[in-house]
Amino acid sequence: MTHSKSAEPGDKPAGRRGGKRERLAAAAAQVLHEQGVEKTTIADIARAADVPLGNVYYYFKTKDQLVEAAIDAHARTLADLITALDALPTPQDRLKALLAGWVDQREVTARYGCPTGSLASELDKREDGLDQALAKVMRVLLDWAEQQFHGLGRTADARELAVALIAGYQGISLLTNTLRDPGLMTSEGRRLERWIDSLTP
Amino acid sequence: MTHSKSAEPGDKPAGRRGGKRERLAAAAAQVLHEQGVEKTTIADIARAADVPLGNVYYYFKTKDQLVEAAIDAHARTLADLITALDALPTPQDRLKALLAGWVDQREVTARYGCPTGSLASELDKREDGLDQALAKVMRVLLDWAEQQFHGLGRTADARELAVALIAGYQGISLLTNTLRDPGLMTSEGRRLERWIDSLTP
Repeated sequence: MTHSKSAEPGDKPAGRRGGKRERLAAAAAQVLHEQGVEKTTIADIARAADVPLGNVYYYFKTKDQLVEAAIDAHARTLADLITALDALPTPQDRLKALLAGWVDQREVTARYGCPTGSLASELDKREDGLDQALAKVMRVLLDWAEQQFHGLGRTADARELAVALIAGYQGISLLTNTLRDPGLMTSEGRRLERWIDSLTP
Repeated sequence: MTHSKSAEPGDKPAGRRGGKRERLAAAAAQVLHEQGVEKTTIADIARAADVPLGNVYYYFKTKDQLVEAAIDAHARTLADLITALDALPTPQDRLKALLAGWVDQREVTARYGCPTGSLASELDKREDGLDQALAKVMRVLLDWAEQQFHGLGRTADARELAVALIAGYQGISLLTNTLRDPGLMTSEGRRLERWIDSLTP
């Protein structure tokens, strides 16, 4: 859903930017995306953040606290994305720019899936509050997309269309990932673009 | 994608049907759906299958072999579903019956996600062959859906429509699961039904 900068190929490791807490949160988001929650150890995240393992415990006592920090990092990435999209002139432009961002990430998605979607899928097996922390991030994107469909004059079914758009992306991310085929994301992106055009007055 | 009987609430535990190997495979599918791969132990599956732990090793040496057996169980469930759908008179009937089956499972999906989709999401972080075993199951459903859209006369874009349908379901399963809201599956199911009608000559 939101790809943090640190998850992009060829990018600097997460450990090279910001304060230690911020670096650990970014590294957690990246390592959880690549390995999933259960397979990841605190040591994996410390290594990716270039922070000595002993220092991690000063900021985070448990792996779950690092998962929470990764969710917060996703929330911040989404907030930045929304700020950038809101600068575009029309709801149609904004929705298409959201789509274009997803399609741009198709190679990473083919390898590791959607960073927030695959994290949600794993956390949703649990019911310990972390699942709901991620649901909150998902709701922010749904609310924003709903506003855009409202702006297109679809007042009666804006929520339903927002759900269809985000579901469409989450689903094609899963198929792109499972079939290891970035081309699926490209063609479904084009189909969703035509769909947005068909809803525009 | 395919919900095996044993995953339904109020159903008998997987351990009460069939031979031991078959019971272990069904139990593996059920437990992996509820807990995910990494959190599940061979002992969890033995317990769900009502098979003594020592006996499990006669059939399956490793957890990965049980994951493979669960994928085979999903493949068999899908084959049975396709046989049942193929008995219906028109492609439109068949696609709508597929949708109706997904909507029927909305409560289980809200709790644990799609059995095959959430398994794919977790296995896709790995590249050890198990991810490709599940991709094969996903392709069987895509191929079948493509045939149905062909049958509706959509020869030029049958594959693209099949991808859109399965992605739509996988995505709404993830949102239903993350937001713990079975109603999302119901309304997206209705939207997809209208979409199938709109494609029908």
